Amino acid sequence: MSGTPYSGTYVALSGGVGGAKLALGLSRLLGPALSVVVNTGDDFDHLGLRICPDIDSVLYKLAGLSDEQRGWGRAGETWNFMQALAGLGGESWFQLGDRDLALHVERTRLLRQGETLTEVTAHIARQLGVASHILPMSDDPVSTEIDSSEGRLPFQRYFVEHQCRPVLHGLHYAGARVARLSDAVARALQAPDLRGIIICPSNPYLSIDPILAMPAFLKALQAADVPVVAVSPIIANAAVKGPTAKIMRELGVTPSSLTVAQHYRGLIDGLVIDSSDHAESDAISLPVLQTPTLMKTAEDSERVARAALELCARLAGEARKVAP
Amino acid sequence: MSGTPYSGTYVALSGGVGGAKLALGLSRLLGPALSVVVNTGDDFDHLGLRICPDIDSVLYKLAGLSDEQRGWGRAGETWNFMQALAGLGGESWFQLGDRDLALHVERTRLLRQGETLTEVTAHIARQLGVASHILPMSDDPVSTEIDSSEGRLPFQRYFVEHQCRPVLHGLHYAGARVARLSDAVARALQAPDLRGIIICPSNPYLSIDPILAMPAFLKALQAADVPVVAVSPIIANAAVKGPTAKIMRELGVTPSSLTVAQHYRGLIDGLVIDSSDHAESDAISLPVLQTPTLMKTAEDSERVARAALELCARLAGEARKVAP
Repeated sequence: MSGTPYSGTYVALSGGVGGAKLALGLSRLLGPALSVVVNTGDDFDHLGLRICPDIDSVLYKLAGLSDEQRGWGRAGETWNFMQALAGLGGESWFQLGDRDLALHVERTRLLRQGETLTEVTAHIARQLGVASHILPMSDDPVSTEIDSSEGRLPFQRYFVEHQCRPVLHGLHYAGARVARLSDAVARALQAPDLRGIIICPSNPYLSIDPILAMPAFLKALQAADVPVVAVSPIIANAAVKGPTAKIMRELGVTPSSLTVAQHYRGLIDGLVIDSSDHAESDAISLPVLQTPTLMKTAEDSERVARAALELCARLAGEARKVAP
Repeated sequence: MSGTPYSGTYVALSGGVGGAKLALGLSRLLGPALSVVVNTGDDFDHLGLRICPDIDSVLYKLAGLSDEQRGWGRAGETWNFMQALAGLGGESWFQLGDRDLALHVERTRLLRQGETLTEVTAHIARQLGVASHILPMSDDPVSTEIDSSEGRLPFQRYFVEHQCRPVLHGLHYAGARVARLSDAVARALQAPDLRGIIICPSNPYLSIDPILAMPAFLKALQAADVPVVAVSPIIANAAVKGPTAKIMRELGVTPSSLTVAQHYRGLIDGLVIDSSDHAESDAISLPVLQTPTLMKTAEDSERVARAALELCARLAGEARKVAP
């Protein structure tokens, strides 16, 4: 990323597919100056393998390996393992592609050898040629659980097996309270040349809140004296993808960028919202930058990333102006 | 297998591919009246998965899933997992097909849940529609190790990674001395209607000796008052497949059916040898049945199986004649 017009380092907070789109844009602009802190609340053990859906989505996206049509997993994927597993009477509710499986097997092997998830993820990112740092939010276990019309469900049962159909009443992030900051995340947030923190347009409840639910993380984030900017996952009162709008309605709030602003109140200094959400910008009591936020191509991702970095720079300038 | 002309039950001893060919023939003739006791000396942990090469060869062969062209693994196999694993910098010296992988993942999962290898194998055999009983030689670990020109090597390193190239000086079956008989193997060998025990044409040193090296097994085999018949893996002083002849030369013996007879001396009551080994039959001081033993098709397997069962019946008849 030589010739980048950006100086200093940045931290992004991301869930899976939606957040990874912005992370890609940021990564193309910032390269090794970007650390993406990724939600691990969805991680689970399945078939004896450790599965980290959000980390993998970010890895594949930044490595240029993700399947853009299907919207998840690897491009050129095949499903012969799953077919054979079904033939053996194995569990087949969670789809694991043949290529994707290599990542789960290799990660599980390295974890069993005693490496941390942070070390394993760094190793795999290097192997895949990813220049930015992909950091699990913690090496300690945090599990997102859903209180729903079907009772309390582990995240993947709710998200994949029940396909978010049960009505969501509340969320728990088991383990978050005691989860420790990894050295890598602490270093990223405490970097002297840190210029901004960007919350990617992931589902605030399912993907970003598990990160913020860790007091150790929240404290380090708040101690970082840099602008915090979120990119809203809502466009024209609907989520681009996934259950964000449905969950907002079930939690009794209007699916809107205003709701996103209120959700992150006290935490963010500015919000990037879609151009179509024009009426919203007045109601949001925060600096707002409007731009088309739908990301279909890598160029879209880069454009929205540029907007988020611009808002960071603008907020940093303003902060400097009011400084004594 | 209704209408079978065979009464009673049989036990076969088998290694992987070579032995599985005869096991297939026996299985087609005997169905659930056959128990195949399979070598587990080659079993090993790889990538966090428990791999049982000989059990899998027998499973796939009897389920009609084996790849006849390649000679190992599953038909219609794909290799996308391996390719992706190599891309992650993972270990790629041991080839695991995408479909084959399902078996290793499911077996490892069930073993971790506390099931025995015998239980897991029975479950998988049922799922694959195999009527005969496929029994691991023991649920206790036995590891075949090779003393070679490259030092002592675990079996798979010798067999797969070094492709049997190092000169073999000796073999060890670590754990064999204390390995216990499983209930399933004990029941098969002690069955009141047992009619014969057949040693399949597997490599005597690498595949059959690990089974016989268990004192618990050898004692149960010798206590079974039925004919024990071996099918020679040697045709015209060469092994049909694999390193049997090479190993015999390295151990200082001539690759021949006579050597096989001498190797199993005191244990077997008769030997099935190939029609081409005519000169041998006189030198072997045991009842011999000659028949073409090359097995290329399922019909070949059935024909050789019929010969082995015929020799068992003949020996049982003779035993009856000399009984008081």
